[in-house]
Amino acid sequence: MKKTYKYNFTVRGYELDSFGHVNNAVYLNYLEQARWEIMNEFNLLDYFKKTKNFLIVIETNIKYINELNIFDNTFIDTSMQKSGFYLIFSQMIRNKDTNQKIAKAEIKCIFVDKDRTPLDVPKILTDSL
Amino acid sequence: MKKTYKYNFTVRGYELDSFGHVNNAVYLNYLEQARWEIMNEFNLLDYFKKTKNFLIVIETNIKYINELNIFDNTFIDTSMQKSGFYLIFSQMIRNKDTNQKIAKAEIKCIFVDKDRTPLDVPKILTDSL
Amino acid sequence: MKKTYKYNFTVRGYELDSFGHVNNAVYLNYLEQARWEIMNEFNLLDYFKKTKNFLIVIETNIKYINELNIFDNTFIDTSMQKSGFYLIFSQMIRNKDTNQKIAKAEIKCIFVDKDRTPLDVPKILTDSL
Amino acid sequence: MKKTYKYNFTVRGYELDSFGHVNNAVYLNYLEQARWEIMNEFNLLDYFKKTKNFLIVIETNIKYINELNIFDNTFIDTSMQKSGFYLIFSQMIRNKDTNQKIAKAEIKCIFVDKDRTPLDVPKILTDSL
Repeated sequence: MKKTYKYNFTVRGYELDSFGHVNNAVYLNYLEQARWEIMNEFNLLDYFKKTKNFLIVIETNIKYINELNIFDNTFIDTSMQKSGFYLIFSQMIRNKDTNQKIAKAEIKCIFVDKDRTPLDVPKILTDSL
Repeated sequence: MKKTYKYNFTVRGYELDSFGHVNNAVYLNYLEQARWEIMNEFNLLDYFKKTKNFLIVIETNIKYINELNIFDNTFIDTSMQKSGFYLIFSQMIRNKDTNQKIAKAEIKCIFVDKDRTPLDVPKILTDSL
Repeated sequence: MKKTYKYNFTVRGYELDSFGHVNNAVYLNYLEQARWEIMNEFNLLDYFKKTKNFLIVIETNIKYINELNIFDNTFIDTSMQKSGFYLIFSQMIRNKDTNQKIAKAEIKCIFVDKDRTPLDVPKILTDSL
Repeated sequence: MKKTYKYNFTVRGYELDSFGHVNNAVYLNYLEQARWEIMNEFNLLDYFKKTKNFLIVIETNIKYINELNIFDNTFIDTSMQKSGFYLIFSQMIRNKDTNQKIAKAEIKCIFVDKDRTPLDVPKILTDSL
């Protein structure tokens, strides 16, 4: 069974747009932060700094299921799988109080060096899969 | 042949992230603004204000093809099609100087009233398709 | 002695700019959220929704003292004072682990109705000062 | 007489907040971009990349005079002065159609090297003042 990583957050006021709900692009900020938390858990922040390698998003697929509003307590469950050079994140945002689904996303990423040459997924990550 | 709407913009410095290129979520900001330009062309801003109806994003699919950097001159070509209640935007971001593809996206949207009841796509839009 | 309200947060990865630290504008997002937390504590979110009144920023003065980086644990201490129609927030961002000062800000705000007529600071707030 | 640099922009839809006008933090994004345009005019982008030096904001003072709304045509007039190590930007945002003042800001900046040691303002900039 795939390991799931949980990231908790509360919606902030400035993240709402003129329609009074969280803007569609802000969901990608949330999802990115959930991935940073995983990178941090595997001590990959030093790796990024030292090697100048980085992790770029190749494709994002997100279904918006329910709106988010200010002060909504929310969490993201993230799991990862390797597919060739790609690291694919499956992410689900849910309301923490109601467990209601908020958004479901699949994010295809790839590690590259500073010249944008594709790299293998770091061993420390693949060992965890 | 489907009508295409063009939106021109130049990448701003604060849109870059710590990897020195435009952050993945910012692409959704650009794509949204290209759609606002179309809404404006059809005088739908007053419609949103008067009716309290709005246009929400249901699903986003975006392939990131090339990076964007500060001062890149860029444009987005957008076309629309109706599918039941849905209005689907096909959007391509390109570099204006090289015509290189930057990102390709499909954004599925729906008009809703203030109680989130789905509405038909406004006639002024469907007449243009 | 003035009451102080505390807001805790951790720096997110997408809040960094191309210089690898939190962008100067993002500090204003943090400060705004600390004020939303206070508004929420006084149940003013319903007030905003019902009355269509809102709280606008008239002037911001911020000194940036130290940089913020991803995963920095941080808090904001906020106190308020009334000055005529104005509500003035004194806000200090500090590193939670070191207590180091990060930024010091004074934000002058005013309540207005939907026609932008200035309003008295709501009694529930002035009673707390 | 001090030289003035002009930056033109149009307000984008996602820059509005739940009060339906441009969020206070977004003004700092606009002001930053106006400064990037000046840095670019003096070919300082290569300087930043090669030297790893950068320009950081030490203090921001902004008075919000009038609201901005979607599709407002706007410009920023920026002038610079040197004061010791500091480079101080005086910036005024105005509505392009009405010339109405939107916001007035003073931004105190300093060039630093990658160890955050303060540096003299580059000669190419001081020669222009």
